[in-house]
Formats: sequence, structure tokens, C-alpha cells
Amino acid sequence: MEKTNPRTLPGFMELLPEEQILFNQIQDKIRNSYERFGFLPLDTPIIELSEVLLAKAGGETEKQIYRFLKGDTDLSLRFDLTVPLAKYVTEHYSNLSFPFRRYQIGKVYRGERQQKGRFREFYQCDIDIIGDGDLSIINDAELPSVIYSTFKDLGFGDFTICINNRKILSGLFLSLGLENISSDILRIIDKIEKIGKEEVIKELVNLNIDNSKIDAIIDFITMDGNTDDKLDKLRKLKIENEIFNEGLNELSEVVKYVRAFGVPDENFKIDLTIARGLDYYTGTVYETFLNDYKSLGSVCSGGRYDNLAEYYTDKKLPGVGISIGLTRLFYQLNEINLIKSNKKSIADVMIINMTDDFEYAANVATKLRTENINTQIYMEDKKIKAKFKYVDKLEVQYAVVIGEDEISSNNVTLKDMKTGEQVKVTIEELISKIK
Amino acid sequence: MEKTNPRTLPGFMELLPEEQILFNQIQDKIRNSYERFGFLPLDTPIIELSEVLLAKAGGETEKQIYRFLKGDTDLSLRFDLTVPLAKYVTEHYSNLSFPFRRYQIGKVYRGERQQKGRFREFYQCDIDIIGDGDLSIINDAELPSVIYSTFKDLGFGDFTICINNRKILSGLFLSLGLENISSDILRIIDKIEKIGKEEVIKELVNLNIDNSKIDAIIDFITMDGNTDDKLDKLRKLKIENEIFNEGLNELSEVVKYVRAFGVPDENFKIDLTIARGLDYYTGTVYETFLNDYKSLGSVCSGGRYDNLAEYYTDKKLPGVGISIGLTRLFYQLNEINLIKSNKKSIADVMIINMTDDFEYAANVATKLRTENINTQIYMEDKKIKAKFKYVDKLEVQYAVVIGEDEISSNNVTLKDMKTGEQVKVTIEELISKIK
Repeated sequence: MEKTNPRTLPGFMELLPEEQILFNQIQDKIRNSYERFGFLPLDTPIIELSEVLLAKAGGETEKQIYRFLKGDTDLSLRFDLTVPLAKYVTEHYSNLSFPFRRYQIGKVYRGERQQKGRFREFYQCDIDIIGDGDLSIINDAELPSVIYSTFKDLGFGDFTICINNRKILSGLFLSLGLENISSDILRIIDKIEKIGKEEVIKELVNLNIDNSKIDAIIDFITMDGNTDDKLDKLRKLKIENEIFNEGLNELSEVVKYVRAFGVPDENFKIDLTIARGLDYYTGTVYETFLNDYKSLGSVCSGGRYDNLAEYYTDKKLPGVGISIGLTRLFYQLNEINLIKSNKKSIADVMIINMTDDFEYAANVATKLRTENINTQIYMEDKKIKAKFKYVDKLEVQYAVVIGEDEISSNNVTLKDMKTGEQVKVTIEELISKIK
Repeated sequence: MEKTNPRTLPGFMELLPEEQILFNQIQDKIRNSYERFGFLPLDTPIIELSEVLLAKAGGETEKQIYRFLKGDTDLSLRFDLTVPLAKYVTEHYSNLSFPFRRYQIGKVYRGERQQKGRFREFYQCDIDIIGDGDLSIINDAELPSVIYSTFKDLGFGDFTICINNRKILSGLFLSLGLENISSDILRIIDKIEKIGKEEVIKELVNLNIDNSKIDAIIDFITMDGNTDDKLDKLRKLKIENEIFNEGLNELSEVVKYVRAFGVPDENFKIDLTIARGLDYYTGTVYETFLNDYKSLGSVCSGGRYDNLAEYYTDKKLPGVGISIGLTRLFYQLNEINLIKSNKKSIADVMIINMTDDFEYAANVATKLRTENINTQIYMEDKKIKAKFKYVDKLEVQYAVVIGEDEISSNNVTLKDMKTGEQVKVTIEELISKIK
């Protein structure tokens, strides 16, 4: 028979079992953390009508879409979890209670240019809080505490949640009369960490901005001091612009409650340079960095938007949300050895049977499983050496050896594969020892 | 702005939060059960190269595939989890330990004709055990114990695992000289429950089979008695055919060990009529029925196959596996009210703040969350009635009310929403009461 070469598409992550165990551990921690904050689970289809999914899209995103016809129907694979959320909330509006708090962990698809560390299929882990008409600013303060709690659980080391409010930037540009080129300015100042202050000034000069205004911008984004210092300095700027002051008040509230929610000052800061590329953020924005690995970029980002679903409904549905791009994060942390597979097996016990009859072994396995102990029996007809090699390769912690002796005396030999220690015990002792 | 009508494709399940909670509970139980048996987790891409995914496919399945071009690449969405497993095992062969035991819970896609209760996107929950060269028959006996354990956990009522061995049927047909029309005969006898014995005889007559042979077939498939009776009767048939006897020996072994694995006799039986439609089953086959809802069809099926990956490799990789079609099952059980949403909220506690300052409330929330108590704060500026209506709608069990009094005395009022009982407690008392 002619053989097909079995291969996985580039840009699609497929893990070995020990990596998958680690991936699932991380995903479970994220889910548990999200649930601790009372977010409801959601699972929307991966395929949607292109008309629905692309109502809002355009530009770069649209080019990356996996879009195709099935029969006469124009379909697309979801490229994020936000558009499906907008669809969901509008479609099921009358059955939901607002504020509607949901998490969704699922795969999304983008046909990106092939590149190391870039994925075409990847998990996003999102939470969003959607209000009906309005949504209290305190919600914006709760999300950093979700980030804090989640990344504490994940244990990827020290991290900083950077918080800003886009109204502050918009207000500044308005007060300088630069609102028409604000997105160009944002694009430039966003790069200050990478290209440095001098380059930023050069690029701003290229936009034909007055020197005095450039000074104002640079003073603004390089403002130093701790969180309270920065809030103070912002107040002292006395910028007489309503939007600026709205943003400043919001940011002050957010800082106050981020602390009340127990996020230590060393884990968050005001960063006036972050604006988030996406157009739909209108207020608070977040980015999160691992202190020792800033080059990874933001590992958890999000923000406040005024209108989740304006392409579907006239209802005003403001929201605030964050997202972790899990697949990319997993890949990056693996590359720098910050995470390491710690389990090669789901089984905690491997039963090794030395006789031809597996009845006793099957009995023991069932007893262990009834006690919620993950148990496997090696059932193949192989030499004893091969059996133990299997236990070793899977790094199962306990081997339970069963021979004629054990069967006749109604017990088992328990071997700790780490220490090599070996004891004969009854089934009851076995269970309590392993537990 | 012109609005797009937000809608979900027919054949794609999208649940309300309380249904999603229930769905996830069921999925978690299946996962836990599979892990108790030491199966390793796996997650393969939903998109594969068509050449790889369709190497084996054909006929009806191929027509249902979601297949499309992205650039020049011919892609397909997976239609089951078995072909991706075959790909995976061949591709990663040298990194796996055999027997390779994996579970995979994931979405698959089939563009089926639109029909109530039929889904185009649905979850399969699969386990498979893959041997390298050979695989002990005891594995075939372990899977019914996985089914037993899983459906006990799920609590959908009494169920029966029907077991057969295709070699017994093949051997019978060989001994009758009917091997060339065996698939036609299988198709007919598979319908005996639905159409009755007389119809089956009629259809067999239409195949021009001798009356004596028809009698033999009918006697065979209507064989009565308990499991041991049937094994006895099969032996007493004294069919001198190697394949028949191989199948009978395998079935006897499977029965012996199914019992050793603790599956009670009332939960399994030999059913000589089941053959499973798919071509690749070669030995043991399973179907599982809910005793009170047989009309739902099999809720968990599978079997033994000689060669998992013959389209990819010359290596002989025999396996045995089972699958639960979770999306369809969930839909069906929901329709007949056998399952019912028991939770509308992930939060166990809702904090209701009666003051303008949320600092104390945020403090309390963080303390509860640190103790792993799923907690939400109602943060919107609404009347007290609206706040409690929200708690009621989400059916959160505990409301924690915070007013000026509570803040000044550093405690909270805990209200059990079910009993209406209300007590003033300290934060420590609150935590221990809820736990």
C-alpha cells in the first residue's frame, strides 16, 4: 500500500504527552483562577458565518482569516474570542444577567506569515465583564487582581501589571491640538522602550509637531516616580481638558481599588506609554510583563471598551476584559526553560504482574481506581526488564509488583521508583501509603 | 450604523451559561475517569492537510468534510479523533512509550444534512490503547471497566455494555460459506432490534441464502441465556473454524477480565448482533445503552482494530478504543430531561455593598478568593432591590451584605439565599461557614 507522509501543519502546536500534561496544568490553573472570581464558562463555535464574524473586521485581520465556502454558505474560523462574545451577548441578551461575566478558553485561528514562535491555531484565555448600558469603573480595578491571582498561581516569577487610561492620552493630545494625528503619535511613543527617547523625538519632529509640544509629550511619557507620584504629577499638570480629567479620575479610582483588591504595589504600575494597538479600547488599558523576561512582550493584556457589539445592536454594552495568549506563552516559556515538564505520566501507580493470570492485578487496579488513584496495569507479555523499562520511561512514581507470592498471601509489593525502596503491604496499606 | 444580524450556524451547539456549567461538569467527569485509568492527554490541531487527513477516508465521510484552500494549501477540519491519532502515533513514534494510552476530548466537524439533534461541530471524548506490534487481549477487557466507571460517575441511570467479537461472526459466515456477502448479512442482522426477526429472515431470503443457513444465522443471533450460557452455547456449536474459535477464546478472556475489573454482570452482556458499521474493527466491539432509553442508541462505542495507521506506516499498530459523542449525548439527555442544570453561577458568594466605598468589599472578596471560595462583588450603582434580583437570577447561594455597620464593626452579614437565614459574622467565621 502506498503510504502518505503523516505530518502536522507548520504553525500548529502539537505536543508530546509530557508537554501536554504541563500545558493542561497551566490551562487548569488559569481556569480555576477565572472561576474563583465568579466568571461563567462559555464555549462558542469555532466556525461562524463570515457575515457575522467579519461585520467588524477589516485590514490586516481580515487577510489572515480562514474563510471558505461549504455549499453556498460563506464561513470563517474565529480569529479571536471577542467577536463571538459580541455575537453571543447580542443573540442571547434576554437570557443573560448583567453585568455578564464570562471566561472562554478556546482555540482561535489566524493565517499568519510563517515565523518561529507564531501560531496559526492558538488558545486564548479570555475574561470579560459586560455591562448593560453602563459598567462601574471598579470592574476595571478588579481585572488586575485577576491577573495578579492568575500569575501568582502560574508561578512564572515576578511580574508587573502596567495600567494606563487612554482618555489621559486623548485628553493630552486634545489639549495640544494634536488629536488628528493622535494615532500616529501613539504608534511612535509605544516604541520608546525599544528605540529610545532620541529616536522618538526624531519621529515626532517628522510629524511636524512644534518643539514645545514635543517637549510636553516627552515630559509626559517619561514621567517618573511611584504610582502616587505619577498621579500627583498628572494632577499638577492642570490640563484643562474634560477627557483628560475623566481619565485621570478613572485611573485614580482604579489604583485605589487595585490596592483594595490586594495587588501589592510592586506588582503594578502606571505606564503612560501603553495604549494597546486595537481601536476599540476607550479607557483603562493593561499590559503585563514578566520582570525578568520583558522581551517576551505582554503576557496578559486588555482594557475597557465602550461598545462591545455596535455592529450587531443599538444597545450600549460597555465592557472590560483581558486575554492570555496561552499557546504562544507556553512556547516562549518552554524555549527559555522557565517551565519544565514535571510529569511524564498521568498514572501514579503502575501494576506489574509477574504471573500469567491478571485477575488479581485487575482486582487491585480497580480498588485503587475506586479510591481515585490514577492507576495503570502493564498488560503486555514482555520480559520483566521491559516492563520496568516502561515504568521508568513514563516516570511513574509507584510500581506495584504482583507475583504468585503476593497473590497467595493477598498482598502486593510496593516499589517507590524514586528511592528504590520496596515493601510488602496489604491492599489497604497500599491505598493509604499512596494517598 | 447598519447592523448585522448576529446568529449562530444551524448544527452548532451554543449553550447558555447554566447549560454550559452542566456541560463542563459532565466533560470534567469524563476526563477525571479517563485519567484515573492512566490515559495520557492529547490535543491535536483541528486543521490538518487534506492529503494526511483523507489518506484513509472515502465515501460518505469524505462528502461531509469541511475542506478548503488557504493560499495553495489544501486543508481539512478533522472529522474524528482517530485519524489524527494515527497521524500522531506515526509522526511521534520514536518519542512514545507503547502501549500508548491516550485520551482526547475535542471538537470534530462533519457537514451533515441539517436535522434535529445532529451536529456539525461536536465533542468526541476518546480513549485508545495502541500497541507496537501486538496488544494483549486484556486491554479489550479494561475498556468496559472504563465505560462502567465513567457512566457510574455520570449518573445517567442503569446502563448495559454490549460486547461482541467480530471474529465470531466472521468465523460463522466462513463456516457457512457466506463470507462474500458477510457485510450484507451484518447490515441486516444489525437491524433485528428495530425490524424484528421475521423481517430479518425475509431480507436474508432476498440474498438467496439457503433456509438451513438462515436458520443457523437466526439461531445464532437470537441465542438466549446469561453471559456464561452464551459462551457455553457458542462452544457447543462446535464450529470448526479457526477464526470463530479465536474470536470465542478472545470473548471468553474478555468476559473473565471484565468481571475481574469489577464490572457487575448486570452492567454488561454478550450481544452477538452488534458488529459496528466501521470497517476497521477486527475483534472485540462495544456498544453501550442506557437501559431506560435504548432509543437514544449507543452512548459509548468502540472496539479493537488490527492496524491503526496502515495508510502512514508499515509498522503494525493494533489498538482498542472507545468514544463518547458528548455533544449529541448532552443534547439528547437534555431533551428527555435526564440531566438538569443545577447551577446558574460559578460564584458561591455574591458580595452586596450598601455603601459608596468598595474598599472593604474588595478586601473581603480577596480574602474569600484566597481561600478558594468563588466570589463575585456586585459593583454597579443600582437600587438594593436590583442587586438582590441579580443574586436571585444567578441563584448564588450566599449573599454577603456590607453596610456602614458591618464596616465599622469589621464584620459582614451573611445571608443564605435558600433559607433566608441571616447572621452577622466576622470574616474568619464567614470563611469557615462557607467552607
